[in-house]
Formats: sequence, structure tokens, C-alpha cells
Amino acid sequence: MEQNNFSLFNLSASNDLATKVATELDTTLGQISSRKFSDGEIQVDIQESVRGKNIYLIQATNYPVNDHLWELLIAIDAFKRASAKTINVVMPYFGYARQDRKAAAREPITAKLVANMLINAGATRLLTVDLHTVQVQGFFDIPEDNLFTIPLFTEYYRTLGLFGDNVVVISPKNSGIKRARSLAKSLEAPIAIIDHEKNDSGRQNGYIIGDVKGKKVIMVDDIINTGITFYAAGEVLAKSGATEIYACASHGILANNACDLMNLSSIKEVCVTDSVNVLKHCTPKNLKIITCSKLIAQAIKCIHLNKPLSPLFQ
Amino acid sequence: MEQNNFSLFNLSASNDLATKVATELDTTLGQISSRKFSDGEIQVDIQESVRGKNIYLIQATNYPVNDHLWELLIAIDAFKRASAKTINVVMPYFGYARQDRKAAAREPITAKLVANMLINAGATRLLTVDLHTVQVQGFFDIPEDNLFTIPLFTEYYRTLGLFGDNVVVISPKNSGIKRARSLAKSLEAPIAIIDHEKNDSGRQNGYIIGDVKGKKVIMVDDIINTGITFYAAGEVLAKSGATEIYACASHGILANNACDLMNLSSIKEVCVTDSVNVLKHCTPKNLKIITCSKLIAQAIKCIHLNKPLSPLFQ
Amino acid sequence: MEQNNFSLFNLSASNDLATKVATELDTTLGQISSRKFSDGEIQVDIQESVRGKNIYLIQATNYPVNDHLWELLIAIDAFKRASAKTINVVMPYFGYARQDRKAAAREPITAKLVANMLINAGATRLLTVDLHTVQVQGFFDIPEDNLFTIPLFTEYYRTLGLFGDNVVVISPKNSGIKRARSLAKSLEAPIAIIDHEKNDSGRQNGYIIGDVKGKKVIMVDDIINTGITFYAAGEVLAKSGATEIYACASHGILANNACDLMNLSSIKEVCVTDSVNVLKHCTPKNLKIITCSKLIAQAIKCIHLNKPLSPLFQ
Amino acid sequence: MEQNNFSLFNLSASNDLATKVATELDTTLGQISSRKFSDGEIQVDIQESVRGKNIYLIQATNYPVNDHLWELLIAIDAFKRASAKTINVVMPYFGYARQDRKAAAREPITAKLVANMLINAGATRLLTVDLHTVQVQGFFDIPEDNLFTIPLFTEYYRTLGLFGDNVVVISPKNSGIKRARSLAKSLEAPIAIIDHEKNDSGRQNGYIIGDVKGKKVIMVDDIINTGITFYAAGEVLAKSGATEIYACASHGILANNACDLMNLSSIKEVCVTDSVNVLKHCTPKNLKIITCSKLIAQAIKCIHLNKPLSPLFQ
Amino acid sequence: MEQNNFSLFNLSASNDLATKVATELDTTLGQISSRKFSDGEIQVDIQESVRGKNIYLIQATNYPVNDHLWELLIAIDAFKRASAKTINVVMPYFGYARQDRKAAAREPITAKLVANMLINAGATRLLTVDLHTVQVQGFFDIPEDNLFTIPLFTEYYRTLGLFGDNVVVISPKNSGIKRARSLAKSLEAPIAIIDHEKNDSGRQNGYIIGDVKGKKVIMVDDIINTGITFYAAGEVLAKSGATEIYACASHGILANNACDLMNLSSIKEVCVTDSVNVLKHCTPKNLKIITCSKLIAQAIKCIHLNKPLSPLFQ
Amino acid sequence: MEQNNFSLFNLSASNDLATKVATELDTTLGQISSRKFSDGEIQVDIQESVRGKNIYLIQATNYPVNDHLWELLIAIDAFKRASAKTINVVMPYFGYARQDRKAAAREPITAKLVANMLINAGATRLLTVDLHTVQVQGFFDIPEDNLFTIPLFTEYYRTLGLFGDNVVVISPKNSGIKRARSLAKSLEAPIAIIDHEKNDSGRQNGYIIGDVKGKKVIMVDDIINTGITFYAAGEVLAKSGATEIYACASHGILANNACDLMNLSSIKEVCVTDSVNVLKHCTPKNLKIITCSKLIAQAIKCIHLNKPLSPLFQ
Repeated sequence: MEQNNFSLFNLSASNDLATKVATELDTTLGQISSRKFSDGEIQVDIQESVRGKNIYLIQATNYPVNDHLWELLIAIDAFKRASAKTINVVMPYFGYARQDRKAAAREPITAKLVANMLINAGATRLLTVDLHTVQVQGFFDIPEDNLFTIPLFTEYYRTLGLFGDNVVVISPKNSGIKRARSLAKSLEAPIAIIDHEKNDSGRQNGYIIGDVKGKKVIMVDDIINTGITFYAAGEVLAKSGATEIYACASHGILANNACDLMNLSSIKEVCVTDSVNVLKHCTPKNLKIITCSKLIAQAIKCIHLNKPLSPLFQ
Repeated sequence: MEQNNFSLFNLSASNDLATKVATELDTTLGQISSRKFSDGEIQVDIQESVRGKNIYLIQATNYPVNDHLWELLIAIDAFKRASAKTINVVMPYFGYARQDRKAAAREPITAKLVANMLINAGATRLLTVDLHTVQVQGFFDIPEDNLFTIPLFTEYYRTLGLFGDNVVVISPKNSGIKRARSLAKSLEAPIAIIDHEKNDSGRQNGYIIGDVKGKKVIMVDDIINTGITFYAAGEVLAKSGATEIYACASHGILANNACDLMNLSSIKEVCVTDSVNVLKHCTPKNLKIITCSKLIAQAIKCIHLNKPLSPLFQ
Repeated sequence: MEQNNFSLFNLSASNDLATKVATELDTTLGQISSRKFSDGEIQVDIQESVRGKNIYLIQATNYPVNDHLWELLIAIDAFKRASAKTINVVMPYFGYARQDRKAAAREPITAKLVANMLINAGATRLLTVDLHTVQVQGFFDIPEDNLFTIPLFTEYYRTLGLFGDNVVVISPKNSGIKRARSLAKSLEAPIAIIDHEKNDSGRQNGYIIGDVKGKKVIMVDDIINTGITFYAAGEVLAKSGATEIYACASHGILANNACDLMNLSSIKEVCVTDSVNVLKHCTPKNLKIITCSKLIAQAIKCIHLNKPLSPLFQ
Repeated sequence: MEQNNFSLFNLSASNDLATKVATELDTTLGQISSRKFSDGEIQVDIQESVRGKNIYLIQATNYPVNDHLWELLIAIDAFKRASAKTINVVMPYFGYARQDRKAAAREPITAKLVANMLINAGATRLLTVDLHTVQVQGFFDIPEDNLFTIPLFTEYYRTLGLFGDNVVVISPKNSGIKRARSLAKSLEAPIAIIDHEKNDSGRQNGYIIGDVKGKKVIMVDDIINTGITFYAAGEVLAKSGATEIYACASHGILANNACDLMNLSSIKEVCVTDSVNVLKHCTPKNLKIITCSKLIAQAIKCIHLNKPLSPLFQ
Repeated sequence: MEQNNFSLFNLSASNDLATKVATELDTTLGQISSRKFSDGEIQVDIQESVRGKNIYLIQATNYPVNDHLWELLIAIDAFKRASAKTINVVMPYFGYARQDRKAAAREPITAKLVANMLINAGATRLLTVDLHTVQVQGFFDIPEDNLFTIPLFTEYYRTLGLFGDNVVVISPKNSGIKRARSLAKSLEAPIAIIDHEKNDSGRQNGYIIGDVKGKKVIMVDDIINTGITFYAAGEVLAKSGATEIYACASHGILANNACDLMNLSSIKEVCVTDSVNVLKHCTPKNLKIITCSKLIAQAIKCIHLNKPLSPLFQ
Repeated sequence: MEQNNFSLFNLSASNDLATKVATELDTTLGQISSRKFSDGEIQVDIQESVRGKNIYLIQATNYPVNDHLWELLIAIDAFKRASAKTINVVMPYFGYARQDRKAAAREPITAKLVANMLINAGATRLLTVDLHTVQVQGFFDIPEDNLFTIPLFTEYYRTLGLFGDNVVVISPKNSGIKRARSLAKSLEAPIAIIDHEKNDSGRQNGYIIGDVKGKKVIMVDDIINTGITFYAAGEVLAKSGATEIYACASHGILANNACDLMNLSSIKEVCVTDSVNVLKHCTPKNLKIITCSKLIAQAIKCIHLNKPLSPLFQ
């Protein structure tokens, strides 16, 4: 991988994940420092020559999203002015991805704003993991590859024996049905949905469309943020006679008291990837973390060696 | 409306609808001709001065979509070079809207391409009707207002007495659940979904998630194209004991033998808007057309007079 | 040619020509499919990895020009998102090239619109054959090489013994005089012009400026579209005492009843290149097709190997 | 005209013409100074507030073209930063217009470069007089109106009785035939062409295609630069039996010893407009200057008042 | 001011200042809310229609600069999509302004990045107060007006009798000499400089160039951040025999323990404007705040009414 | 250096310097011609194939700046259209660099205009020597490396024994203090400043801040243009008891009667680099020219071989 001017860098949000990716790629991380001054301004300092290099820059943009985004944009600007050949941004988590449309009058479309900012700063390619909506790919006119985590979860649940007619895959809100359908297909299981009378944002008075009685269920979502969606859905499922309740989400944000909620919930195990750093002090007991570092490393390898990524999607 | 340099034009795909909109706005359509030469090239000729005018240009981009799109782009170029002040494109139907993401390796995102072309040609604003996915709004960095037809269908079905617990709103495929949820809410009805074991594109072996026995059902989708989705779902619903089957879709493309399929189907009535011109010789007997011209006219009025559009969404 | 990531593709308008070009280059055409759905939308599917490849994409944009253009733009978008390194568009025929200026009030400049669309979609270079006006090169800010067919026609007519004082090269309309001058120079012949009292578009009441009595004449134009220009000019030339009448044009569009007109005309032989596919059922008896595939292949080779193209112009 | 924030300015190349235009428009010229420092740098100083104003800025870009162009670009930058609402550039003469295509290997297309620079600097509209080739309009994506001088020359020659069968309109080189055709049409006269065996740039061994014996002839071109084209063509025409020889050109550059050449030539009168300032010390005796100030003033008026310009073309 | 679609808004960093500006302009602030979710993402909600409005949006980008910048960019995106006519950004403090050049290898130019982001998001004009370096104006191609605070400080110190030969204006570092020269001129006083042997960033071993013995001195800078520059310079001045030491800076960031440092220092009074909100709990005893709200209000008024701003600079 | 498609070209302003750079790089200059027509238009002719080449193009933009700039822009356009891979512009002197801010109402920012024009024409990288203000780097979003001449002057003065406490480095105007500080640091000398009561542009009534009595002094500036700044400062220094007066500036423009002024002045030696061509007939007796060709050659080498430039700054 060292050949053809390959360089792997990371910023402050993704130290652990980047280290694992570097190990997978049998390379070392480039030297870059980033510090925050007393007035909050970030200074990025690339500590080795990057002239003519193909840069792969890993940075999740989870909390604190605004700091992480500016750190990323500033680093892109620095790489561009330092004559990097290409700047391939790897965002294991894409902050603001849910603001992807005008849901009400005079709303911004912040996900598009983020896309525009990345391109304008100088990013030449983007690699993401399980975008909230796949249409966000179209917010970019540079190549954008979006990796799916469903194969990771499929592999995991199959090792647990969770597949087939005995299992029902659940979308805990009706907007997530595509993900449920996809996981269900690879686990050869049926699906069901938790619908809400009002709308998705409320998450109150949920009821099940479909049948879960006597079944083991796996809820699937892209993000576990405050945990309320999973918690509330878990209660509904428990009341409806599900025998074992699992939940999985690509991105374990776990904001607020998500940790407590998970501990309190009827969910046996919550599985997330390490796309964002889960803080140690807020890890629920029933949390299982699987790594997406191998997936990202393979994708970077394919991109750098001009090999197709399509095998990663099967 | 005539004041402040208002001008309403239309192109070949939307003659009937534009005429209705003009009537609603108490104005006349601007003079523009468009002809196709023997080699297939289109020539657009604006037949009145448009210097300093705010142009509202109505063109659906249904079949033949490529001709309709080029006609639109050429007209935009002509208006721009003829010193129009603003060019507000009104697309009652947005062709290629379903190619809004990379669903497989090396796919284009044609909906974004269309967006880029419109902006690059000179469009300064876009008004659409029920986009296939709302995220397409984010493909634009010019103002984009997307009108919803759910209020039109709600009003219509309420006049038929189709609301409340007696009715179930059906999404004929799982990707359409948001629309079903929205119509169900305004009809105070529950929802159900036709799921397919494989994936959405197949539409085979559909089965119902939810309960429809003894109920009147209303299927809702954004587009009725070949009609296979509605037809197949109708058969499933009929077998499952639904007493009366209705279907509605914003855009009545009715390609191929959609007309025959509808006539053969178990669906009592298929309701569409006039966003695209339904050809007379392919009108199924059970087709009901309601107009979206009033909605579009109101939106144009609000835009031109700088009034908020938000009341149109309630 | 295979080295340095060379890939040759074509779209639906240029199957035959692309096959010949591939043979000249001793390569095979890349796998790409393009199909049209029942609603007229085109789906392009690149069937092999193109990451890091230098793509040469051949597509003439003759009838049906709007379909061929969209197919081309969609393919460019797909190649761009699939991480092609460069996208070199080869347009043997550039549709809409004649709409290159505002000839009347409020006209579009559609050729510039096409140029903008190609660049915006992602084309990084353009190769054309005998543009209607060479100024269209300036519509692009990417490298644009425009090949001339005059050397091909010169070679052909010299093999027929058609050169020197015995021959007069004719421009069938006064806007084409540059081409006539160029062919005349290489055939060492004088020129004459068919002028029209009104203007070029009318093509009525043409009369000859210059002398053709007792001479063999060769008319030259860039496009033979409906054939009326050549037909009418042929009649004038026949009445004026020309002994043998030849006509040549780079692009044999042959729209409408051009075939019948040619068969009826006083023209002994009409020579065109294969830049566009001449349909078999509309081939006039007096049609002679010479290939431009060798010229295009040489140009592609020079471009890909960074050799100068200037030898091709001598 | 003062209303609606109208402001007319000029730069150093067009003092006289701008003064006449201002008189026609019954307005005064805005205060702006431009000086050149000892190191050749130009400083432009707008001496009155232009916030929210619609600026019409007159500057021909004849000799010294590079100074005049930079003066123009700098002024546009200043107006833009000073919050002008629109910047309408009026270029009676468009320098570098003849470098409008790649005529040989590795040539620039400088006319396109000029267009790009004007737009990039901040011009929002362009008004030109008789562009060398009308396709240059397509180099712009902002509105571009190109005024024709043929009506001015027609009116002038008609007052001299120069029209009808007695007169032949001559293109002194074959690339100018469109202009000759246009003037001939409005003078109801036939045309003839001076062809050159080699090519246009040589201007040697010209001979006439067509008939001029015993006729009064009027040569027409867009630019009279060194005067060699007109001089040489005049000699050919005189030898061929033309009885009176006139010449006209929109732009009287008169570089080098054009003045002497005109004095020596067989041409009775050379007519030009005042689009560029003809220097007093180099005015040939047979020079006739007609003004285009009224034409420009009318165009500015139409543009500012959003009236169509099409009447100016009849 | 209400006329011509004027609307004044502010974001979270500038509540107090915006309220004062609104009072000066005799208007009320527009309704806008901005909240931060548990995952750090900001949601901006414009609570009144802004279609066709000229928006003046006040937001300083001091600490926490990344949050304040994203809040501003998101709001600009929202205003743009909500069809605001113009978006005039008023930044009393421009965060990251000091990263305006590559001071070392591979540094970003973050101030340019900020400028690009603002323009790309949709800002149409910028109004700033005392930029760190005036060249940052050139980072923008939209109109940018930079207000000076020197007149405010001049007025203040003249009321204290601090002007004339008795006073020396001090630049506490050599890069600030322009500001010192400017204040000195209007106070009719000489200048002196604190130079540092190494370079500016060190601020160690400063010594005075010039003479301050027995004089009252006024230090001037653009920003008081950690306060170390002023503190260290104050000690040097005290040792050198200055009788009274004053300090002023446009922007009172007062980060870290600036408050304590000021309290400990030899400086009699530190004067800042209210361009950024000084937190109450960190106000040094010797702090004097003068308002720049009147200056900003006058500038907004001039801009909106298309009056020149130049009087504000005298 | 020949490898990897390296090509070095120059234009008319930098023949001598480019020849030296070529010698340092052990290469030959590419063949390019540039001529000026009688109407002032420049034609650039690249006389060898540059397809796929990395072009390094040397052109200072000193007097006549407008001609030199257009020549440069036209050449860039030609290289771009001739398929150069990269176009690295080397500007030893950046004309218009002092117009880098709005210093008065309605001023342009011409240095930004120049930057925009270079980028828009197609430059992909810029290399400059001692920009008037380093912030101009931020006017570019392409990589920009700015070389410093202080190391050259340091080396030169050290060989003359001019360093240490015996020497004072002088900024002849207060805006140049950064350069003086930098030279002083590397000569281990103190600094002093010539201040002017009014402002920098006047240069009248200058007086010294700091102490020069009995010292050898070295004035430093970036440009010596008319020479008035150095001359006037020299007189002040002489009166103040400086024993020997030296002056150095990166760019020896020497406009107007700078030559006479230098001859008349109290300055013992004026040292400049050969960044611009000093005309032979206007060389003052006390002028010393040191070359920057080695510095530029090293920078080009580093850039082309992707080596860091940072060693050149030490």
C-alpha cells in the first residue's frame, strides 16, 4: 500500500478506528497535530511532506460535530495548499445526515451544506458508512462510496444462530423499513414494523404492524442517538410477546442518558459498530461493539488500487 | 398577477395543465413555440419580449422524457439570453426522479444530473409536485418548493366517506410507507404494507403486513407507471378479504399496457392528478383524475407575491 | 494501447463506427449497456470496473438527438461517479451544432448549452469531426480537438482523378465557402459559389457566382440533412453546363426523403463519411460512404500517448 | 433615463463616443478617473457612489488593447465591490475577437479568454457592435446583444444613390461573404467575392468570383486594420473594370500605415463608424466616419427600460 | 427602514449587540430560533416568512467559534432556501481572521476557508468590524465593507483629554504599527513600538523603539485574547517611565485568565468595544466597554438605502 | 529533471532569469514565441507538443504590466487547450500586488482580480518571490508557494561583515516592519523605523523611531519603484548620524528617474535581485544585483519531484 504515494491520516474524532484501519492496511498513520486555542480556534499542523500524495483522511463527525467538521475542513484546506494529489475523506459517521430535506417551512438542508463545504474545501472523494439516507450520495458530484453494515450484522447474528423463520426483523419506525428489509433478506426472516400514529419524530403510542409473538426479534436502525426509539420499541415488542429482543445500529452515538435507557430496557443486546468512539463511562452493560475497520480498510485498498468495491457489498 | 413583470409560459408536455393554471391565475399564457426538425433537433422560439420579466415556465418531463427535458433546457437558455429576470421552472412531474442514488455499482445518479443541468442552464427556482423522494430537494442549491398531493387525495376520499377505522391505507411496497403514513393520518385510518420477500423491484410474492380483512383499502404511491405494482398488490388485497380496493398516485404515467392492467384489476377506482397528460386512448375505465392546477396556481401566486407557501401544506 | 489504463466504450448511436475504431486500435470495446424503459427513461449500466481508467466514449448525437445526448450525459455521470480518471468524449457528429449563435431575437444558443452540459456532467476532453463552425471549439474550456474530413475527401477524389483545372469546387451556399476553399486548395482547383438572393435558409432562386461551364464540379458541405441544399444546387449546376456533378459532406444525416431527393437529383455521386450511421433502407443509389474510423483511431492514439495531433491535419 | 438607478460611465478608450451616447440619452457621464503609474499599473477611481446602480460602462478595446482590457477589468472589479446592482459592459470594439478558434496546433482561443475574464470580473451583461464572428456570442452565458452596422451603411449608401442592379457588393475575402450578402440584400444588389488561391491570411493573388465590369462596387468588412485587404482588393477590382470603388467597415482600426495605403488606393471612399477613435493625424483623405452612437444609445435605452432590441435589427 | 423588505436577524453570539443595533435602527429583530441537540447538531428555525426580504444577519464568530460559524452557515442555507432576496452577513468579530496566510509549511489559510464557506453557503454581502488584516477583504468577491473602530477610540480618548504631544500611541507588537499610526494621527500624537527580538508570537524580551518617558501612553491592538501581549507590553512601558498606561482593542475576547492578567497589570484602563459579548464573570475591574452598535447600525442603514459608507470612515 | 514530463518555458519579461534557471536545472527552455501585432494584440505560439507535460512557465509581470499579464494569460489558455497536464506559473514579480485591499471608497482589489484571472485561465499552481503582503497567498485556492529573499540578502550582507550590534536594520516606512524584523533577526541586529506623520503614501517629514547614530544601517523593502522612499529615508538617516547606508529590495523596478535619485542619494549601495530585468541604460552606479535564479530553480525542482520546500525557508 505504501507504493503509489499512499498516505493515511486521521483527526481527533477517529483515533482508535484509524489505528485499527492502519493495522489492517499494514501501514502507519501520518503525522498530523490539531490543537484548540483558548479562543476555540483549531490549528491543524501536518507534520510531514504530503506533496503529490494520495491522502486518505479519517474523521467521524459525531459529537462535538461542529468542532469535528471544522477540524476536517481546515485539514482539507491544509492538505490542498500543501500540494496533496488527492484528498479522500473517510467519514465513518456523517454528522447532520438527518437534515437531508426541508421537512418544514424555511428549514435548511444541512446535509447538503456539509457536502458543499467538503467539496469547496477541496475533498476529491468521499467514503462513508451507512448514510442515514442513500440519496445523500447525490448531494455530491465527486465519487462517493457508501459502505453498508448489514453484512457485518448478518455475519454476527448468524454466528448467534439468529436467522430463519424463528426470527423477525423489526424496523422501530416506519422510515427505516428499507434497512429492516435488507437485514431480513440476508437472515431469511420476515419483517415487522413499529408504526406511530402521529409521525416519526414523536415515537409515542407505537404499535406493531406484523406478527412477533413467540419470536426472537432484531430491531435495526442506522443511528442510536438518545436511545428512545429503541427503548420505546422494545417495550412494545416485549408486550407483544417477543421472546428475545435484540437491537443493532451502525452508529452508536449514545447521547444524553442513552446508556441508562439501554440498561433499563427490555433489549437483551444492543449491537453497534465502532464508526464513532463510544465513551467508556457511558457504555451500557448490554452493548456489543463490532468493528467496521476491516470493511473500511478493504474499501480504501480497493480505491487506492483501482479495484472494484462491489465485492464489499455482497 | 400581471403586475411586477409576471409571465406564465408552458412547453409541449403541459398544455392542458398550464391552461388551467392560467385560468386560475386569471392570466394568459405567454407566446412561445417549439418545433422539432426532421433531424430531431428542437427549436424554441419565444414570441414576445421577456426582458426583465419573472418567468414561470411549466413543463412536466414525462414520456418522451428526453425530448421534454431538452425542450425545457433549451427554453431556459433562450429565456436567460433574452434577459429574463428570473426563470422559475414548474415541473409537475420530475422525470428520472427515481434514479436518485447509486443502487448498484457504477450507476449514475440521473436525478442529480437533471438538477445540475437545470441550474447550469439558468433556472433560478424550481417548483415540483410530490417528488419521488424528498431528498431530491437537496440536489438543488436554488430555492426548491415541493408540493404535496396528499391534501388533494384526502379531500377527495373524505367526500367519498372513505376515512376512519373502516379504512386501511396501504403502501403497495415498503419504500412507500411514508406516503401511506401521511394519508392515513389525515384520513384517521391505520396502515398496512405489502412487503416482498426479495426486494422492491421484483414485486413478486407480495404479502400483507397488517390487517385488511373486511376493510375498505386505499393504496397510495407517487407514480403509477406500468401499473404492475398496483395490480399485483390489488390481487393480494382482494385475496386477503379487503372489501373495496382504491388506489391513488400523484402521477399517472400509465406506460405500456397499464390501461389494460387497471381494467383487469380488482381495483375499484384509480385516482391520479393531472400532473402529466393522460392520453385519451389509454384511459382505464376505473380512472379518476383530479386536478392539481389550483394547487400549482396558488403556489405560483405565493412565490410571485412573496407570500409564504406553508399554508398550502396544511 | 491497453497500457496506461486505456478503455474504449461506445453508446447506442455509434456501434458500427466504434467497432471499426476498436479494430484500428487493436482493442476491444468496454462492456456497457443502455436500455430505455417504458416511460422513456434511459438506464446506463457500466458492466466492468473503470476505476482509474482513461475512458474514450464514442457517441454521435444525430437523430434521435435528444435521446442520444441524454444517453451520453447519463453515461458521463456514471463514469464520473465510478471513479474514471478521465472521460474523453468522442462525438463524430455534434448535434445542435448549427444553433451556435442568436440568429433572431430571443433565440437560444443550443450548441453552447450542449457544451455546458457535457462539461458540467463531467467530460474532461472532447474530440469532434468537422464541426459546423470551428468557433464552437471556443464554447469549451476543456481541450477540444476537431478533426477535418477534407483530407479524406481529397484522397478519395484524387483516386478518381478529380483534381486540377478541370474541376471546380462548389459551395452550395455562401456560408460554406471556407470548406470549399479548403478542398479546392488540396485539389488544386478553383471555386464557385451558389448564392441565394434572400438568405441561406431559403435556398431558393440560387445562382452561381463563378464559372462551371464544361467543368466537373464537386459540391462540399458539412452536413447533408434533408438533401434540399444539394438537390437544388445540383439543378442550378446542371443548367449551367457542369458536365459531372459530385457532392460530399462529412455527416450523412439524410433525414426525411433525402434518399428520394438524391436519387432524383443530377448528382452523380454523393460521398459521406460514416460519422453517423446511415440507415440501410434509406440509402440512395448514388451514395458512397468512406470511413472516418482510421482518422478517429489515430486521434485517440495520439491523445492517449500524448503525441501531437497536428500530423493528422496535413 | 435617470430613473431606476441608471448610470453611464466610460473609460479612456471611448471618451468621444461615450460623450455622444450621453447626449443622445440626455444624461451626463459618471465621474471616474483612471491613471497609469510609472510602473505601468492602472488605478481606477470611481468618484461617486454607485451603490444599487445599474452601470453602463463604455470601453472599446482597440489599441493598446491590453491596457484597455485591464482598465476595463479593474473598473468592473471596482464597480462590483462598490455594490453596483448590475454592470453592463458596452464594447463598441471587441479586441482579440479574431482569435476565436484554434486555427493551428496549440493556439489559444483568446476571444474566449476575454469573455471568461469579463464574466469572472463581474460583468453581468455585454453589448457589442458587429462582432467579427457572431458565434462569439456563445462564448458568454450572460446576456449578450450584438448590434449590426449594416443598417447604418445601408442608409448611408442609399442617400448616395448606391443601390440596385448598378451596384455590386463585394466581400474582399471569402470569409466575409455573410456580411456582403446582408448588405447586398438591403441594397438590392448582387454580390461578388475576392478569392485567394492560398488562404485568407495571405491576401495575395486575389481574383474575382462574380462580375463587376462597369459596375459601382462596395466592399464590406468588419475591421479595417492595416488596410492591406481593402487595398489589394481595390486593385483587383480596378483592373476588372469596376467604375467606382467604395469600401466600408464597422471598425476603423487603421493600424500601421493604413492611412497611407488608403490614400494610395483606388478606393474612392472608405466609410467606418466611430466605434473606435480614429486618430486625427492618421486620417486618410478618403475616410468617411458615420456615428454608431445613436444605435448604441437606443440599445442602452431598450435594455434599461426592458424594451425589446429587435426593432434595432430591422 | 421597514420599507423595501428590510429584515434584521441575529444568532446566538450577538444577542445584546443586535438588540442595540435594532434600537438604533428603530426596528425589531426577526424571529429565529436555534437549538443544539444532544448530539451537538444545531437546528435553525426561521419563524417568519422571509420571501423576497433583504436579510441582515448579525453573528460574531468568537468562542465557541466552530459552533458560531456552523450556526451562521446553517442559517444562511436556510435563508437561501427560504427565498430571501439578499443575505447580508454582519460579523462584528471574524473568527479565524489571524490564520490569513501560510506562516509555516503546510499551514491552512483558515480565514480564506471561512470566506469560501460563507460565499458558498449563500452570503451575498459581508460587513465586518476592524479585520485583523485588511487584505482579508480580498478573500471575498462579494462586496465586503470593513468598519474601523479608530474613530470610536479617538472620540473616547479625546473626551479624556488624551491627545497631543503629551501622549504616545504604542503598538505592543511590530505587526500592529498601522493601527498605532492611524490612532496617533487622529490624536495628534507620536508613536512608539514594542519590538521583540525573536518574533511576534513569542512576546518575550520586548523593548521599546521610540520614547515614552514621562508620557501618557495608549496601546492599541485589534484583539485582546489572552491578554499576554498587553500585559507584557504594559510592564515594559511601566519600567520605561510611562506615567499612565491605557490600552484599547476592538475585540475583547478575554480568553483564559485574561481577566486576572488585566487586573494584575500596570494598565490603568483597557477599552474594548462590544463587538463580542464580554462575559460578566470575567470582567476585569479596569475594563471599559464602548459600543460599536451605532456604527454598525449606520452602516446597515447606508447599505440598505444605497447611500455611501465613506462618511463613516472619517 | 527531464523525466516525468517536465517542461520549462518563459515569456518575454523573463528571458534572462529563465535562462539562468534553466542552466541551474540543467535543462533547456521550451520553444514558444509571442509577437505583438500592429493593433497591439499578442499572439502566442507554442512551438512544440506539450500534451501531458507538466509546464513551468516563468513570467514576471513588471512594466509594461498589462502586456505582460495578457501575454501570460494567453499562454496559459494555449497550454490548457494544448492538453498540458499541469500549468505551474512562476511569477518572480507579481504586478498589482500592492492593490491588495480597499484602501479608499470604491477601490478595486486588483491583486485579487489578477489571482482570479490566473486561476480562471487555467493556472494550476503559483510560485512567487517575496509578495508585497503574504496575505495575497490567500487570494488563491490553488497551491501557492511564496519564496523569501531575506536569506539571499542575509548571506550577502554577512559576506560584507554587516551584522551584529554594529548594524541597524531599517524599515523605511512603518508598513515594512515585518521584513526589517526578519532581516534583523538573521543579522542579529536591532531595528529602527522611519515613521511619517501623515501616512505611508506621503513619505514626507519622515523621522526615525529608534537609534542609528554611529551605526551602519541597512534599509529593506520589497520593491524599489520610483526610489523616493529609499532616497528620502536615506537623507533622514544621513542627518541622524548613520555612518554607512545600505538599502536592499527584492524587486528592482526602478521606474521614472529612480536611477538618478539613487545616484544622488546618500545610499552607498542598493542591492536588488534579478526578479525583474533591470534595464541597462537605467542602472545606478551604486546598484548591486544578486540572483534569485538558484532559489527559483531549487523550488521548481522540489515542486516537480514532490520534495518539501520548507528547507528553502531556513
